[in-house]
Amino acid sequence: MLHDPNRVYIFDTTLRDGEQVPGCQLTPPEKIEIARELEALGVDIIEAGFPVSSPGDFQSVVEISKAVTQPTICALTRANKGDIDAAAESLKYAKHPRIHTGIGASDTHIKLKFNSTREEILQRGVDAVKYAKKFVEDVEFYAEDAGRADIVFLAQMVEAVIAAGATVVNIPDTNGYCTPDQYGSKICFLKENVKNIDKAIISAHCHNDLGLATANSIAGVQNGARQIEGTINGIGERAGNTSIEEVVMILKTHQSLGLHTNINATKFYEISRMVSSQMRMPVQPNKAIVGANAFAHSSGIHQDGFLKNRENYEIIRPEDVGFPSASIVLTARSGRHALKFHLERLGYQLSKDELADVYHNFLTLADKKLDINDDDLQSLMANKLVKQ
Amino acid sequence: MLHDPNRVYIFDTTLRDGEQVPGCQLTPPEKIEIARELEALGVDIIEAGFPVSSPGDFQSVVEISKAVTQPTICALTRANKGDIDAAAESLKYAKHPRIHTGIGASDTHIKLKFNSTREEILQRGVDAVKYAKKFVEDVEFYAEDAGRADIVFLAQMVEAVIAAGATVVNIPDTNGYCTPDQYGSKICFLKENVKNIDKAIISAHCHNDLGLATANSIAGVQNGARQIEGTINGIGERAGNTSIEEVVMILKTHQSLGLHTNINATKFYEISRMVSSQMRMPVQPNKAIVGANAFAHSSGIHQDGFLKNRENYEIIRPEDVGFPSASIVLTARSGRHALKFHLERLGYQLSKDELADVYHNFLTLADKKLDINDDDLQSLMANKLVKQ
Repeated sequence: MLHDPNRVYIFDTTLRDGEQVPGCQLTPPEKIEIARELEALGVDIIEAGFPVSSPGDFQSVVEISKAVTQPTICALTRANKGDIDAAAESLKYAKHPRIHTGIGASDTHIKLKFNSTREEILQRGVDAVKYAKKFVEDVEFYAEDAGRADIVFLAQMVEAVIAAGATVVNIPDTNGYCTPDQYGSKICFLKENVKNIDKAIISAHCHNDLGLATANSIAGVQNGARQIEGTINGIGERAGNTSIEEVVMILKTHQSLGLHTNINATKFYEISRMVSSQMRMPVQPNKAIVGANAFAHSSGIHQDGFLKNRENYEIIRPEDVGFPSASIVLTARSGRHALKFHLERLGYQLSKDELADVYHNFLTLADKKLDINDDDLQSLMANKLVKQ
Repeated sequence: MLHDPNRVYIFDTTLRDGEQVPGCQLTPPEKIEIARELEALGVDIIEAGFPVSSPGDFQSVVEISKAVTQPTICALTRANKGDIDAAAESLKYAKHPRIHTGIGASDTHIKLKFNSTREEILQRGVDAVKYAKKFVEDVEFYAEDAGRADIVFLAQMVEAVIAAGATVVNIPDTNGYCTPDQYGSKICFLKENVKNIDKAIISAHCHNDLGLATANSIAGVQNGARQIEGTINGIGERAGNTSIEEVVMILKTHQSLGLHTNINATKFYEISRMVSSQMRMPVQPNKAIVGANAFAHSSGIHQDGFLKNRENYEIIRPEDVGFPSASIVLTARSGRHALKFHLERLGYQLSKDELADVYHNFLTLADKKLDINDDDLQSLMANKLVKQ
C-alpha cells in the first residue's frame, strides 16, 4: 500500500476538528474555498466533516467532494451504522472517498463514557470497520484517547481492525496528555507488536493541551507513523490540534529525518491568513511559522548578526513559507495597508487608531524623504512609544 | 550546590528576551508590576534586563532589584568588561544577584558573526566569567547557538567556563532549530562528558521557531538540565521562547518524570493576562494552558463525554491554573465584562462592537429569564452568527 516508505501523508482536519470550535463555524461556500486552498497546498486527505451531526455538515461533505478532486475526502463517524450510512451517502461524489470511524480505547473512555467492556468495545470497532468497507475501500479507524489507553489492549484493537479491513489506524492523543517519549513509544510498540501492521498506515493525531502536539507528531513519524493529522494554525478544540505548518517545516528543515511530504510550503502564509480570517481565530504574533513576528528580528544584537549573515539567526527563509516579500517600497503615495504590512514585518502590532496616528507621521516624513526604509519606520515607532 | 536533585529551577526572561520584541516595550513601573507578579508566581530567577543596552534598561534592573527580594535577579551581558561592569552596577541592590554572560558557540556564529576562532572565543568566554565573578558569586554562562554548535567544542567550552566559576551553564537553542531528540542528546552528552558538570546547573533555553521549544525544554530536563528559561505566554523574538506555563504544567501532570518546580500554577491565568495586556501581545484562543479556549469543550461528542465525567476530556482542571470560576451568575444586572468573560470561557472572541451588539440581546433575554446559563449564551451567539 505504501509505495514510498519515506512519504508522510498530511491529513487536514481544519474543516472538521477545527470547525467545531465555537465561533469558527463556516458557511458551505467558505468551506469549499478553504478546501480548494488545501488542495493547492497539497494535503493528501481533507476531513470535510461529521455528516450525521447536522444537515449542513452533510451537505458540506457533498459539496467539497464535488469541488475538490486531488485529495482524498474523508468523513467522520462514530462506530454505528447510522453514522456510517450518512458518511457513505455524503461521500458519493468523492473521487477518493474515505470513512473515518472509531471508538474510545482507554479504560477511562470505555468505562466512564461507554459504560462498557474492552471486549465489547473492540467488537464494535471491528463491526464498524467491516460495515464501512461495504461502501468504500479506504477506511480509517480511530482509537479515541489512545494516548491514555493500555498499550497491550490498544495493540489488540489495532490488529483486529486492520484484519477487518482498516487501511489507516489513527492513534489519537485525544486529551493532549502524552510527552513525545510516551507517544513515540506507543507507536513503536504498535509497529513492533502488531503482526499485520504493515497492511495499514499508522496516523498521529495529537492535541496541544500541554503544548506538545507538534513534538508528539514528529515522535510518531520517527517511530513509524506515516500520516499526521492536523489543522492550519493549529486551531481546534481547547488548545487545538497539531499545526500542519509546523510539522511540515520540521520535516523540511531536518532532512536527516529522511521523511518528506507533498506540501507546497510557500502556500502556508496565504492559507493561514484565510483560515484565521474566515474562522475568526486570531494567530498570535509569536506563532511558529505563520505568526506576524515569526521572522521579525528585533533586538540590536540579533539585527546586527542577521545583517552580517542571515544564517546567524534564520533557519527558514520567510519566502519558503510564502511570507510576502519586503520589496514593496514605501513612499508618500503608499497606503495604510502597505505601512501596516511593513510595520508587522518589523514586529509591530497596531490597532486601527494607532495605525492612523503613525500613518499621519509617516506621511509627513515621506513628504521630506523620498523612500522610507526600515530605520525610518523604527524611528517613527520609537517616537510614538516615547510619546505614550 | 543543588540541594534537591529533582528540583527544576524556573528562570523567567519575560522582561528581557520578551521585552525586546518591537511593540512590547514596558515602562519601569510596568516592569516592576510584572516582576512582583513573577515573584508571587514563584519563579526562581527573574532576568530583569540587558543593562548596557540603554539607560532605561539599566534603571529597570536597579528598580526591580529593590522591589523584589525572593527570586534571584539576573542581568544579561555580552562577553566584555563594559557590559559586565554595567550589569554589576545595576545589580547592586539585588539580594540575590546573578550576571548572565556568554558568547556564540556554533561555528556559524564564531565565523560569520565574530570573524574569530574557537580558541579565541572560548578564551573570551572564560575571561568574561572570571571578570563577572569579581562582582557576584552567581554567574551564568550562555553558549549562544549551542543548538547548532559542534558538541565536542561545546563540551570543552562548558568545562572551561565551569572551571572559571560559572554556577549555571545555559545551552540555548538560539534559532529554535533542534528536535527534542537532538536537544536532549546534547544535554546528555554534556552530562556524561564534562567532568566538572556536577559543579553547575545545566539550563535549557529554547526558542519556538519550529514549535518545539516546550518539548525541547522537557527533553533537556529529562537528560539532566535543572533550569528552564522561558517567558509568560511564550512571548519573545520571532516565534518566541519556551512558555513557562506549558513546561511547568507538563512537570505537574507527569509526576512520573519525578521533577518539580516551586511554581504556584494557580497564578498563571492572571499573570498571562497581565503580560498580554501590558506588552500588547495577544494570546491566541488555542494557546495551551492560558488561551481563552484552553478548557472550552465544544463539540457535541466531547460535551457529552465531559458531562458524564470530566476525566474523559480533561487532564488539567481550569482552576489548577487559575482560570476564573464559572460561578459568576449572569443576570440583567451583569455588565459587559461579565458577559465577555463567559463568552470567552465558551470560546467566543468578540470585538467591542460585536460585544455591544450581543450585550443588547443579552439584556433583552435576561429581562425575561432570571439567570442566563451557557445554553442561553450559545443560543445568543448562534442567532448572531445566523444573522451575519
